[in-house]
Amino acid sequence: MIGGGSWATALTKILSENGARVSWWLRHKDDVQHLRTTRHNPRYLSSVAFDMTRVFPSSDIEDVVKEADWVVLAVPAAFVKEALDKLDRDALKNKRVISAIKGMIPGRNELVTDYVCERFKVVREKLGVVAGPCHAEEVALEKQSYLTIGSPDLALAEDFSQLLRNRYVKAHAAADLDGIEYCAVMKNIIALTCGIAHGLGYGDNFQAVLVSNAVQEIRRFLYALNPQPRDLSASAYLGDLLVTAYSQFSRNRTFGNMVGRGYSVKSAQMEMNMVAEGYYAVKSIYEVNKDLRVNMPITAAAYHVLYEKIAPAIELEILKEKFK
Amino acid sequence: MIGGGSWATALTKILSENGARVSWWLRHKDDVQHLRTTRHNPRYLSSVAFDMTRVFPSSDIEDVVKEADWVVLAVPAAFVKEALDKLDRDALKNKRVISAIKGMIPGRNELVTDYVCERFKVVREKLGVVAGPCHAEEVALEKQSYLTIGSPDLALAEDFSQLLRNRYVKAHAAADLDGIEYCAVMKNIIALTCGIAHGLGYGDNFQAVLVSNAVQEIRRFLYALNPQPRDLSASAYLGDLLVTAYSQFSRNRTFGNMVGRGYSVKSAQMEMNMVAEGYYAVKSIYEVNKDLRVNMPITAAAYHVLYEKIAPAIELEILKEKFK
Repeated sequence: MIGGGSWATALTKILSENGARVSWWLRHKDDVQHLRTTRHNPRYLSSVAFDMTRVFPSSDIEDVVKEADWVVLAVPAAFVKEALDKLDRDALKNKRVISAIKGMIPGRNELVTDYVCERFKVVREKLGVVAGPCHAEEVALEKQSYLTIGSPDLALAEDFSQLLRNRYVKAHAAADLDGIEYCAVMKNIIALTCGIAHGLGYGDNFQAVLVSNAVQEIRRFLYALNPQPRDLSASAYLGDLLVTAYSQFSRNRTFGNMVGRGYSVKSAQMEMNMVAEGYYAVKSIYEVNKDLRVNMPITAAAYHVLYEKIAPAIELEILKEKFK
Repeated sequence: MIGGGSWATALTKILSENGARVSWWLRHKDDVQHLRTTRHNPRYLSSVAFDMTRVFPSSDIEDVVKEADWVVLAVPAAFVKEALDKLDRDALKNKRVISAIKGMIPGRNELVTDYVCERFKVVREKLGVVAGPCHAEEVALEKQSYLTIGSPDLALAEDFSQLLRNRYVKAHAAADLDGIEYCAVMKNIIALTCGIAHGLGYGDNFQAVLVSNAVQEIRRFLYALNPQPRDLSASAYLGDLLVTAYSQFSRNRTFGNMVGRGYSVKSAQMEMNMVAEGYYAVKSIYEVNKDLRVNMPITAAAYHVLYEKIAPAIELEILKEKFK
């Protein structure tokens, strides 16, 4: 497990409680020490107690990866390059790599799986993503959750699903790696835009229309990238979008809300003391779409607000005319 | 305008502010008197002041209908038969009838438009429905909202759209009368079931999966009824479902929540002092589906809980195994 955040912590709980031995890379040595001595991650889901006969925290990423059959990536997208670049180019050879990251590599506009594929020469059939409507906090509380594992190799997706299934987690395999990964990225743009609209005083009626139009925008984009058949009402797509867009706790929504209320992008980021993933996602998706030229009014509106300093009220006025 | 509830009040505000003359039937004579003297509906959206040179409240339904070009039905589905049965069988002849009712005629398992069609010999080309994600309360606050008018006659749908469009309402025409009307009914079942799940302690992850599976259930049902192409992510379908299922103020959700928490159906109804539309919708849709035999696990679960006294916890256990 690569990453010390809430999603990495939730996945480590699920995998280790199912009997897997989890070598767990966390960036901060203090957190590793805290986990070893107290069985709890001090920063995220700190109520979860780990069985330390199966969970092995370490801040040495090479060591963590060396013996692993599966490598699960769960750092924020903005840090994945920094974390993985410490590894040799053949460190992931013959391993199966699952991305649990909901973002793209900033500056490269690449999906995480594409980056892993290219840098470490991992074939796509050894790659997967884990997605689904899944607040890590609800996993900690053992509330019923559903995950989808996407991979071009359905057998790999099914194998990883097996590792996740338990009393409160259902997991299933799906073939659409790229579509699921892109949708997980785009949902953060939508949640951020829902936040902007809310901050400007738009209500629930408008948000429902925004999310409906978002499904259509995501569908157009995915179809242009790869026109394979996919049912966007499946929980890996629509469910993931809903749990994020309707969450009061979403960082993306909170960030957008501040921008909608009039904070500058910089001061919203400083106030939150973190960067919402949607902030980077907007730029990446907008730039990927420069070639595709898909009609993406929501992404364009968010991009104009966040990167071109257009007033949120103006962009939402334009956007609302495009919806029906 | 037939009906004195919040949706009737909101539609009367929109139509009259656009210049239409609205004869408005309300059941209670006191409310008619109150409106005439104070310009406000005492019971619903009471902040809205009407222009009484264009709004004509009355408790005489024959009188209200007589001179009207359009008849808009906005009483609860459970009372539509009682209200309309006072009219002569030819009272709606040559009128265009728009249903704003989100429910079916109890005991007959008929859509409101089908009932009007049959009882008053109104041809389907003179009928329409108004739907969309639209809390009446947000209309009162003039928050941006979107409505869809469904009719087999697109020109009729466009004409009524014209009457609704204003600074904060966008309206558009669609051809799918039945699909839109059924979806508006079914969304109440979904909101009710979301409430049951919430009452039992299921969280946001589960609700997102429930709503995703609901879209698929609605799609299967509509396809079996009438396999015309329709995009269920349009705001008339998905948007309407979302605004209801994610509303904290939905009566259906509140009712389901009480049942999930252990109230009997009867005591939940008594406690709320009203009947949620979803309660009747479950029975109607379940019975319509006896012939269609579509796979409808959510509707079945709600039916078993509300009409066969099966424990909500048991039905949700069964339901969660069917989702993915």
